[in-house]
Order: sequence, then structure tokens, then C-alpha cells
Amino acid sequence: MALLLLSTAERGEVWPRVFAEAGESIFVGEASVADPAAITHIACWVPPQDLSVYTGLKTVISVGAGVDHLPPLPAGIALSRTIAPGIEAMVRDWVVMATLMAHRDMPTYLAQARDRLWRAGKVTTASARTVGILGMGRIGRLAAAGLGSLGFRVRGWSRSGTPVDGIDMFAAADLDGFLRGADILVCLLPLTAATRGILGEALFAKLPQGARLVHAGRGAHLDMAALWRALDAGRLASAVLDVTDPEPLPAEHPLWSDPRVIITPHVAAQTDAREGALHALTVIRAVREGRPIPGLVARERGY
Amino acid sequence: MALLLLSTAERGEVWPRVFAEAGESIFVGEASVADPAAITHIACWVPPQDLSVYTGLKTVISVGAGVDHLPPLPAGIALSRTIAPGIEAMVRDWVVMATLMAHRDMPTYLAQARDRLWRAGKVTTASARTVGILGMGRIGRLAAAGLGSLGFRVRGWSRSGTPVDGIDMFAAADLDGFLRGADILVCLLPLTAATRGILGEALFAKLPQGARLVHAGRGAHLDMAALWRALDAGRLASAVLDVTDPEPLPAEHPLWSDPRVIITPHVAAQTDAREGALHALTVIRAVREGRPIPGLVARERGY
Ligand SMILES: NC(=O)c1ccc[n+]([C@@H]2O[C@H](COP(=O)([O-])OP(=O)(O)OC[C@H]3O[C@@H](n4cnc5c(N)ncnc54)[C@H](OP(=O)(O)O)[C@@H]3O)[C@@H](O)[C@H]2O)c1
Ligand SMILES: NC(=O)c1ccc[n+]([C@@H]2O[C@H](COP(=O)([O-])OP(=O)(O)OC[C@H]3O[C@@H](n4cnc5c(N)ncnc54)[C@H](OP(=O)(O)O)[C@@H]3O)[C@@H](O)[C@H]2O)c1
Repeated sequence: MALLLLSTAERGEVWPRVFAEAGESIFVGEASVADPAAITHIACWVPPQDLSVYTGLKTVISVGAGVDHLPPLPAGIALSRTIAPGIEAMVRDWVVMATLMAHRDMPTYLAQARDRLWRAGKVTTASARTVGILGMGRIGRLAAAGLGSLGFRVRGWSRSGTPVDGIDMFAAADLDGFLRGADILVCLLPLTAATRGILGEALFAKLPQGARLVHAGRGAHLDMAALWRALDAGRLASAVLDVTDPEPLPAEHPLWSDPRVIITPHVAAQTDAREGALHALTVIRAVREGRPIPGLVARERGY
Repeated sequence: MALLLLSTAERGEVWPRVFAEAGESIFVGEASVADPAAITHIACWVPPQDLSVYTGLKTVISVGAGVDHLPPLPAGIALSRTIAPGIEAMVRDWVVMATLMAHRDMPTYLAQARDRLWRAGKVTTASARTVGILGMGRIGRLAAAGLGSLGFRVRGWSRSGTPVDGIDMFAAADLDGFLRGADILVCLLPLTAATRGILGEALFAKLPQGARLVHAGRGAHLDMAALWRALDAGRLASAVLDVTDPEPLPAEHPLWSDPRVIITPHVAAQTDAREGALHALTVIRAVREGRPIPGLVARERGY
């Protein structure tokens, strides 16, 4: 088994050390590969267009948490996305921060501060608001636990509606019922054919008047024009976004100066190079021992 | 036993209902009292200057969480501050939000957004930072638990240094050792003679270079000019303040426009009228039954 890494200079430094410690083979960059047939795994953001020379290839490992940017792979090659507890905790922390900022009217207080205005509004307890989380996967469940421990009521929506301890769960078909009670809506979905554009006019219309949006999924989940109309109509009171469409958000985009919107530049999480390498090692071992591949992406679902 | 309430119109509405349910006597406003000698408790923000007509007075109950605004009371009259789980949770939530905002560089991202600039900095995990909490009382301990569950290392400083589960505790004399390791400093102290002005030049100088300040105590803990010098010197990277000196912060104050500082207008918590009334009932019952008074303020300590 040998892995080919096609990634950043930082990963190119860190991964070989981690692999050496573990006694596994790694090549960094296509130029370093003498015998392509010996490569069993490729770790990358985007794989080489022509994979046909890698006749022994078993898996492609995405160095990110999402796989929405990847082209379809040839049949017989498995796709694994990086599972990294560090990334998941980072996104959870950003979501807890952004949800509290939405809950505690930070867009209003930040706008007032720009106007040098000291004016207190009414404080609402967390227990008086329901947070609805779209996507109750690894990160959604972690965020739900964090928000629940602050006293928010939490409900979750997922494809399967699989029960989660302490959370009111809704399956895909019951989206309307889920949205009806979501005072703060948090998006932690993967981007797939089924979820692209989901944060749009029809969805916003089903939220309670004055709901708040927190978005840490992918930019293409969100219809930015519909967001703006929902804010203007008062359907949404505010939005905290870590992802936008497009990214980077161009300087001339009107949302930059909308006082109801807080934008961070896709920094909810960043993969730690060492954590990514450790994930790749777990994939290599699972393949060798015939065990289920960690982070395996189900082709038909797209996540 | 009878209580005299001197407070807002909202409390004047809510408290009589709560007292009626509990079968306790209440008078709202001094004008309603025919026999001052019958009054055993006064609940107020500031008590009447002349308490001598209330010959049966046993306790003054502050309707706020702090008592720093109160004049000294005649000997023999106990002072109780309002203990309210709702307030404590509100302050905890604000502190968790503000600490995450400091940790995740929100002052920088908010300033960049004003400049319409999409530029990602490096993300640090919570586990890489130590939060130091000044004041490990009811609210400090709640904040410590919330921050600890997000993975921050947490250390606490209190007068006594009383041990707290899972927290590295420092007693009053060991302030320097405590500060040395505090990457994010959170102030949750009561305002007393011993703590007034504590957030000043000498204290900032003992923090690690680039530390962050989160302040939800009282404005007079903070030397605002020293804060500004510490920011300019890079000793502090940023500050998130719910309380300032003076309050309200005047429009012409330069900190309003400092991109390193985020200010909210003393909204970490607001007393819920019903919770305040319930606290007063627990005081009345404790006095009647000769039990320790909830929220009793120790005169010599000032909190
Ligand atoms: N902003 C950032 O920096 C950042 C960083 C990391 C990740 N993310 C985003 O977070 C997403 C979630 O990550 P994760 O690790 O938690 O993913 P995950 O474990 O795969 O969970 C995905 C969740 O979404 C649900 N889901 C998928 N398609 C759905 C559909 N069509 N309808 C309803 N529910 C659907 C799944 O339902 P089932 O439970 O039924 O399968 C599951 O609960 C990533 O895909 C990425 O977009 C963002
Ligand atoms: N911003 C807002 O809206 C808001 C709302 C509510 C409260 N507050 C602030 O939060 C403060 C704390 O409330 P709390 O209910 O947690 O109070 P508390 O239960 O009385 O706790 C006070 C803590 O401060 C410590 N302390 C007092 N004097 C000290 C000194 N000289 N040196 C070192 N430590 C000292 C105490 O030490 P020991 O444990 O040894 O006694 C205790 O740990 C309030 O007084 C108020 O200033 C702000």
C-alpha cells in the first residue's frame, strides 16, 4: 500500500513525518511517483483528471470535510472524506458563537456601536428559543449538544430522521413541521443535488416571522437574493454566514454593508495537517484489513 | 411580615400577583404604606434615605445581582442580593459568546467586513487556549463549566481559592501566577473596595502578550485609559465589554470606534420580574423560619 499526496506545502511537510512514524509509504506530488501502479490511495482536494495510470488505486481521500467539489470517480474506487475531531469541534464552536450572536441581537448592537449609541434591548433567555439544525450528522449532533447545554430547545432535521438523544428529530419529508418551530435556523448540511439552494424563498417563508439564520454549510445551499428579500420582509431578522455564494464574496456585494448580516470568510474550521494525515492512515489500515472505510461517501447520496 | 416594593412599574405589576399566590403581604410604593412599623422587608434598587420610620425592618433586598450601588445600611438590617438562575444563565451565555468572539478573532473579521474584505486567518482550537476567570462565584462557576465543555482549559481566581471541580484554582494572593497563563481573561467579579480598578495597567502587564479581555463585571473594575494603552502596546489584542466606565458610554468616547473593541450596552442579563419576586419570597420565609438568608451580603467583604 502506498499513498500519493497532492496538496499544500504544509501538508507536504507534515504528512511524511506522520507516515514515517507509522511505517507507511507516502509520495508527495505526482513527479515523485516512479511506479503509478503501486499507488493504492490518493489524498487530495481535487484528484488528477486522468486516473487511468493508477491501476492499483483503491481510494481517493478528500483532505476536506466536504466532497461536493469532487468530480465523479471511476467505478470501483472508494471516496473517503476526512473525519477529524478537531475540525468538528471548530465548527461546533463557530456555530455556538454565531447562534448566541443571533440570539443576543449582536447585529443590532454592532450597528448601534457604529452609531456610537448605547441602547439596551430586551434580553431573552436561551430556554425561550428553539434552534433548528438542518443536518444532524457528526457536526450537527455536536452543535446540538453544545446548544442544548446552554438551555436552548433543539430540534434536528436529517434525511433519515434517525433519533438523537434529547433532540426533537424530523425526517426529510417533515421539513415544514420542522421549520415552523425554528426560531434560529442553523445549516450544517452537506452540499448535494438534494440540498443545493435549499436555503431559499420557499424555505424562508415557512419559518416563524423574525427568525434568525446561521449558516456553516456550503455557499451554494443559500440563495443570496432570497436571503435579502427575506430580511427586507422581516421574515428573517438577521443572518450570520460563514459561507457565501460566491466565495470569496466580492467587495461590491451589497450584503457586506447590510447591518442585519454578519459574515466570516469561511473560517468555521481549518483542517489540521496532522489530523488529516491520521485520518488517511486509518483509511489505509481499514482497506488493508478489509474493514469499513472511515468517512466513506455513499455515491448515490452524494455525502 | 410585609414587604415594601420600591421599583419599576413592571415589577409593581408582577410582584403583587406572585405574592398573592404565595399568601404574603406586599405594598407597592411608600405612599401605599399606612403603618411603616409593619414593614419587615424593603425590595428596591436604592432604599429610601431615611429608614428610621421602618422600625420593624429586618432586610433590604436588592432587586439586582450586585449591591455595589447601595449606601451602607444601619446596623441590624441584613442585605440580600437577588439570586436568580435566569440571570446567571444569561450572563453565562453572554460570556460564552464574548469569549468565543475574542477567541475566534471576531473583532478582526468585523473590521474586515466593514472594509468588504474576505481574508481568512488561522483558526485556533479552543483546547489551545486557556481562559482565566476573575471571580469564581455563582456566575463564574457556571461560565467555567460552559467554556470547559467547549474544550477551553479554564483557570479561576477567587478571594478564597476554594476548589472547583475541573478548574485550576488560584487564591487572591496568587494573582500573578493566575494571570501569566490567561490567554483570554474574563472578569466576573463583584465591585468592592478591593476590586475597584483591578483591570488596570499593572494587571494587563502580567498577561501574556496578545491576550484578550472579556468584561461582564462592573464598569468601575476597568481603567478605560489603561485598556487603550494595553491595546496600543499589543499587550491586549482585543476586548469585549458589556460594562464600561462611565455608563452609558458617551457618543464621543474614542473606544466606540476602536476596531479592537466590541461593546454591548450592559445587556449580559436583565432580571425577570417574576424571578425577582420569587427570590424575595425565599428571603421572607428564611427570616420567618430563622434560616440563613438567601443572597446574604457579607458587610465587611462588600459582596
Ligand atoms: N464552514 C466550514 O468551515 C465547514 C467545515 C466543515 C464542514 N462544513 C459543512 O458541514 C457539513 C456537515 O458535516 P458533517 O461531518 O456533520 O456531515 P455528515 O456527518 O455526513 O452529516 C450530514 C447530515 O446531513 C443530513 N442530510 C444529508 N442530505 C440530506 C437531505 N437531502 N435532507 C435532509 N438531511 C440530509 C444527513 O442525514 P442522515 O443522518 O439521515 O444521513 C446527516 O444528518 C459538511 O458537509 C460541510 O458542508 C463546513
Ligand atoms: N453585566 C451584567 O449584566 C451582570 C449581571 C449580573 C452580574 N454581573 C456581575 O457579576 C458579578 C458576580 O456575580 P456572582 O453572582 O457570580 O457573585 P458571587 O457568587 O458573589 O461571586 C463573587 C466571586 O468573586 C470573588 N471575589 C470577590 N472579591 C474578591 C477579591 N477581592 N479578590 C478575589 N476574588 C474576589 C469571590 O471569591 P470567593 O469565592 O472566595 O467568595 C467569588 O468567587 C456581580 O457582582 C456583578 O458585578 C454582571
